[in-house]
Amino acid sequence: MSNRPLDILNSVLNSPIIVKLKDDREFRGNLQGYDMHLNLVLDDTEEIKDGKSVEKYGTVIIRGDNVIYISP
Amino acid sequence: MSNRPLDILNSVLNSPIIVKLKDDREFRGNLQGYDMHLNLVLDDTEEIKDGKSVEKYGTVIIRGDNVIYISP
Amino acid sequence: MSNRPLDILNSVLNSPIIVKLKDDREFRGNLQGYDMHLNLVLDDTEEIKDGKSVEKYGTVIIRGDNVIYISP
Amino acid sequence: MSNRPLDILNSVLNSPIIVKLKDDREFRGNLQGYDMHLNLVLDDTEEIKDGKSVEKYGTVIIRGDNVIYISP
Amino acid sequence: MSNRPLDILNSVLNSPIIVKLKDDREFRGNLQGYDMHLNLVLDDTEEIKDGKSVEKYGTVIIRGDNVIYISP
Amino acid sequence: MSNRPLDILNSVLNSPIIVKLKDDREFRGNLQGYDMHLNLVLDDTEEIKDGKSVEKYGTVIIRGDNVIYISP
Amino acid sequence: MSNRPLDILNSVLNSPIIVKLKDDREFRGNLQGYDMHLNLVLDDTEEIKDGKSVEKYGTVIIRGDNVIYISP
Repeated sequence: MSNRPLDILNSVLNSPIIVKLKDDREFRGNLQGYDMHLNLVLDDTEEIKDGKSVEKYGTVIIRGDNVIYISP
Repeated sequence: MSNRPLDILNSVLNSPIIVKLKDDREFRGNLQGYDMHLNLVLDDTEEIKDGKSVEKYGTVIIRGDNVIYISP
Repeated sequence: MSNRPLDILNSVLNSPIIVKLKDDREFRGNLQGYDMHLNLVLDDTEEIKDGKSVEKYGTVIIRGDNVIYISP
Repeated sequence: MSNRPLDILNSVLNSPIIVKLKDDREFRGNLQGYDMHLNLVLDDTEEIKDGKSVEKYGTVIIRGDNVIYISP
Repeated sequence: MSNRPLDILNSVLNSPIIVKLKDDREFRGNLQGYDMHLNLVLDDTEEIKDGKSVEKYGTVIIRGDNVIYISP
Repeated sequence: MSNRPLDILNSVLNSPIIVKLKDDREFRGNLQGYDMHLNLVLDDTEEIKDGKSVEKYGTVIIRGDNVIYISP
Repeated sequence: MSNRPLDILNSVLNSPIIVKLKDDREFRGNLQGYDMHLNLVLDDTEEIKDGKSVEKYGTVIIRGDNVIYISP
């Protein structure tokens, strides 16, 4: 059972991921950390809404209950 | 009681499943892992929205609270 | 107190049930399993939306938080 | 403290109750069982929507998170 | 800390309260019981919607997650 | 870590606060009590909706899940 | 695993952060405290809605379930 959701997150620490939120926002950044609620910490983050880059951030903490899916 | 929801997921590891989400998205892919919240890990994933394939992914982690149903 | 919700589900294992969901979908199938969240496993499943049969499935796992009611 | 919500439900087992749901549906039936989530089991159930009887059921299990109020 | 929410409810048992719900319904009745989820039991209850009395009940059990506020 | 949310609430007991709710209502009153869910007890309460005072109350118990923010 | 969400919040105590809420409000202020639910305490707070500063506060306690993301 080494492919559980949290195992996969652990295996992509420091790598780029895409995070899709329920309000249709998308974040792209390097995964710096996470917890069991799927709260996420991204670095070098870009926020995309309706297909357009709307903001750049250093670090972003995303609350897990907003997440639809995460793709490494 | 060997047909509980998590037993069924366990029995279809590495097999293709369909996942229907509350926002009407659908994912099709091979189930690589899951946890007790029905968070899911899919491989070779295709996302379908309103009947059309909108994206292909390697791996996707879906947060369980978005799921309506899963069909092996 | 032998008529608690989970007792009733246990008593109709392998029997046909109707499951009504919050998005107005309805599933009809044979109950194969369940858990304490009212996550359900159905077999020989038919999905009905707005009164019309829209899909047939072998097995479906329904996440319990979508359920309005279950009728054996 | 003998008038807690679950005490009241216990005192009306086998009696007729009205259950009002968040989607404006109403169920009328005899309370056969319940649990701590206010999941309910009704017998001889009639479903009423927008003031009209829309269906009759033998037994119905209602998931508690849909309930607004219950009236014995 | 004798003014916690449950302390206040305890101090108004058998007294009239107003309960405002998220769907804009309002109930007025005598508080007969409650639990830690703010599930409430009212007696001699009147339901008010959009400012008009729409129903009278003997006893009503209100599921706590519908509550916005309670006023003794 | 003496500035945690509950510490701040404790430090403003018996003082006036503003409470903004998810349905855009606002309550102003003196904080009499609270609990870990951010359920709140206010005294000498005024309810404001869309910028207008719509009601005065003696005491109000607000269910914490309605709260967006609290400002002392 | 020193980059978990709560570790990051701890490392930016007394520093300015941006908090984006589900209703599109944004708060900017100095982080004074937090808890495991991502409830937050901000100081010298400015509230921004639809791109415009709509209010200034001394201290604000934000309930964590409203948060989409936090950016230091």
